[in-house]
Amino acid sequence: MTTRIDCQERDARDPLAALRDQFDLPQGVIYLDGNSLGARPKAALARAQHVIAQEWGHDLIRSWNTAGWFDLPRRLGDRLAPLIGAAAGEVVITDTTSVNLFKALAAALQMQADDPQRAARRVIVTERSNFPTDIYMAEGLSAWLARGYTVRLVDAVDELPQAIDDETAVVLLTHVNYRTGYQHDMAATSTLAHARGALIVWDLAHSAGAVPVDLHAGGADLAVGCTYKYLNGGPGAPAFIWVPARHQARFRQPLSGWWGHAAPFAMTPHFTATDGIGRALCGTQPVVSLAMVECGLDVFAQTTMDAIRAKSLALTDLFIALVEQRCAAHPLALVTPRAHALRGSQVSFSHPHGYAVMAALIARGVIGDYREPAIMRFGFTPLYTSFADVWDAVEILRDILDRQAYDVHAKRDAVT
Amino acid sequence: MTTRIDCQERDARDPLAALRDQFDLPQGVIYLDGNSLGARPKAALARAQHVIAQEWGHDLIRSWNTAGWFDLPRRLGDRLAPLIGAAAGEVVITDTTSVNLFKALAAALQMQADDPQRAARRVIVTERSNFPTDIYMAEGLSAWLARGYTVRLVDAVDELPQAIDDETAVVLLTHVNYRTGYQHDMAATSTLAHARGALIVWDLAHSAGAVPVDLHAGGADLAVGCTYKYLNGGPGAPAFIWVPARHQARFRQPLSGWWGHAAPFAMTPHFTATDGIGRALCGTQPVVSLAMVECGLDVFAQTTMDAIRAKSLALTDLFIALVEQRCAAHPLALVTPRAHALRGSQVSFSHPHGYAVMAALIARGVIGDYREPAIMRFGFTPLYTSFADVWDAVEILRDILDRQAYDVHAKRDAVT
Repeated sequence: MTTRIDCQERDARDPLAALRDQFDLPQGVIYLDGNSLGARPKAALARAQHVIAQEWGHDLIRSWNTAGWFDLPRRLGDRLAPLIGAAAGEVVITDTTSVNLFKALAAALQMQADDPQRAARRVIVTERSNFPTDIYMAEGLSAWLARGYTVRLVDAVDELPQAIDDETAVVLLTHVNYRTGYQHDMAATSTLAHARGALIVWDLAHSAGAVPVDLHAGGADLAVGCTYKYLNGGPGAPAFIWVPARHQARFRQPLSGWWGHAAPFAMTPHFTATDGIGRALCGTQPVVSLAMVECGLDVFAQTTMDAIRAKSLALTDLFIALVEQRCAAHPLALVTPRAHALRGSQVSFSHPHGYAVMAALIARGVIGDYREPAIMRFGFTPLYTSFADVWDAVEILRDILDRQAYDVHAKRDAVT
Repeated sequence: MTTRIDCQERDARDPLAALRDQFDLPQGVIYLDGNSLGARPKAALARAQHVIAQEWGHDLIRSWNTAGWFDLPRRLGDRLAPLIGAAAGEVVITDTTSVNLFKALAAALQMQADDPQRAARRVIVTERSNFPTDIYMAEGLSAWLARGYTVRLVDAVDELPQAIDDETAVVLLTHVNYRTGYQHDMAATSTLAHARGALIVWDLAHSAGAVPVDLHAGGADLAVGCTYKYLNGGPGAPAFIWVPARHQARFRQPLSGWWGHAAPFAMTPHFTATDGIGRALCGTQPVVSLAMVECGLDVFAQTTMDAIRAKSLALTDLFIALVEQRCAAHPLALVTPRAHALRGSQVSFSHPHGYAVMAALIARGVIGDYREPAIMRFGFTPLYTSFADVWDAVEILRDILDRQAYDVHAKRDAVT
């Protein structure tokens, strides 16, 4: 039987333990929601202060050149690239995940429309359980495009082989599911899509910084993702989009703003897309929020995704085992796959009073979150979560459940 | 003949003079580029520090509710509304100007397509001299829409009455021209568009916080604009979009992300637009950059747009007069209209060596900027520009021109 001392001993041997000190974590909190909003790298405050006081306040407009503001989306994209198996010049950090998804999906549909063998394909395949904004953006784009597409929602992963057919233009999947923590086999699914003549767009919102991703080896065609979850970029920090070198010349998207122009300051009255990844850009980016993304990436540069994955699996294995041992008397059901290959870096349990139990946990300083229906999510972020944290979180959960110390009439908050 | 003492006396009588102290302006700089990047409100640093250290670092995910992050686009939109003649619940601060323009233009085209009397209209009218991204976004949207539109570029303002015809679906104009400072008569042009059965979308990038705007009285149908110029929101701060109450029920746009959903946290697999201005939202916003927008709006709340306009015209009149008096020997040509009604809050002069002269001015601490072809732009921001600043800037310009103290071979920087 595992004890708290065992957990402390694992912490003592943990090669990532020292990185926790690079984050500002409040006293008395066990933060298991880095899958929704990553914790704050301590360096982010000084970085923002410098951008605000010096670059904006003192250097003013000159900072577009002297502080490299204009190059930030590309430069930070290059720093993110190794975490997702991308090459330099293939990623920009810009706009929101939703907006980048719109660009990626529009571009993928256009690539298919431009291919005489595939031009008749009119179906976008995705999962009903996908993060809703992915489905909404696909619906929105489909309804407005000249060619008229339909969005085909698949109810279970094992239906994908049947659903991806010779009508399918693009498959749009989130690599790690936001609710269940299920992780797709990227390479196998990309291979399946390509075998049927479809292109595949991957949403890495719950993957980047959470699990090893190799977009090239995984056969992805395009990808988007989020920097404010596992990458710790700050609340609402700009998202990213990946366009591999092999697709860049064919990549065209409707949000053809001046930042994607070949000569943005020539001020010509017709749009000519720049070469390379820059054509995924659109308008002026929020510099302060964007600059802080680098502080999260700086922490990742001190370790490897393999080391992070090893600890992530150890943390989630431990959490599952402890909950199932110590809370066995309660109606908790594991939603996340047990198989390592199918798991992201979160663990979800359902409970009939999931919302109320999560509210009680949060009141006791164990911060996870809740997603309909009845699911409690616990995100594990190896950069700052310890094995003792896992033990303590489970003990508090057990105490709440044993004493029924939750309000079954708790009303859901607006957001979390 | 005006003297520097006259200018100092005007500063002493200036009711806005005290507001300058609320901005952090570097020593030795006369900043005449607030039309490109507004100066930093001193309060912005503390505001960002609080958002980063307390709301992000300490309160973490809870801040979506407790710090009102989710409501920021609406709440700050309501604070901006009075500056542009909008009502509460009609403005959100979100995304970029380019992206908002895409939403507004798409929605306006859809409104026309939904009207049986106007459904056949397939032309978007704008100016060749419009800010390029406006034209690029119109081109991008046109090429991708189901219905096939063309963008008609008008070469001069007096051609608009002829160009807006019974084929015109939407007129898209920037209220104050970024290069010349020319200000359209919003009411007259909106009336013209409506008389021809067109809708009109106004870009207020160089108007909001610069000149009085009354979108309702001006007959505008939709509007977008920028917060990082005259509104002093910070580099690349999120932009705004205005949808008047009378159009909200018909307002549909393709970027149908989860923030525009009627129940974003119900996580349903089909998009249902929320009522009201929220349907102009799409994805998660960069909170730190967004929050600082309020610090700029706080300064505007201490005065009126009429007071700002009175000083703006006094500053630009003075600058024009002094340049024409004191630099009369040099080949400077006024590009900005002399008539007050046609002028924004900037003054542009062309010079055969405009880029080189501007580079020399910047090296001497007079920061304006340069736009092709041969145009030096000087922005006047009444919240922090003094009459003595105007005098000093002209004296430095005169000195540079008299001594030909500029490098005619100066190479243009990447951005400014």
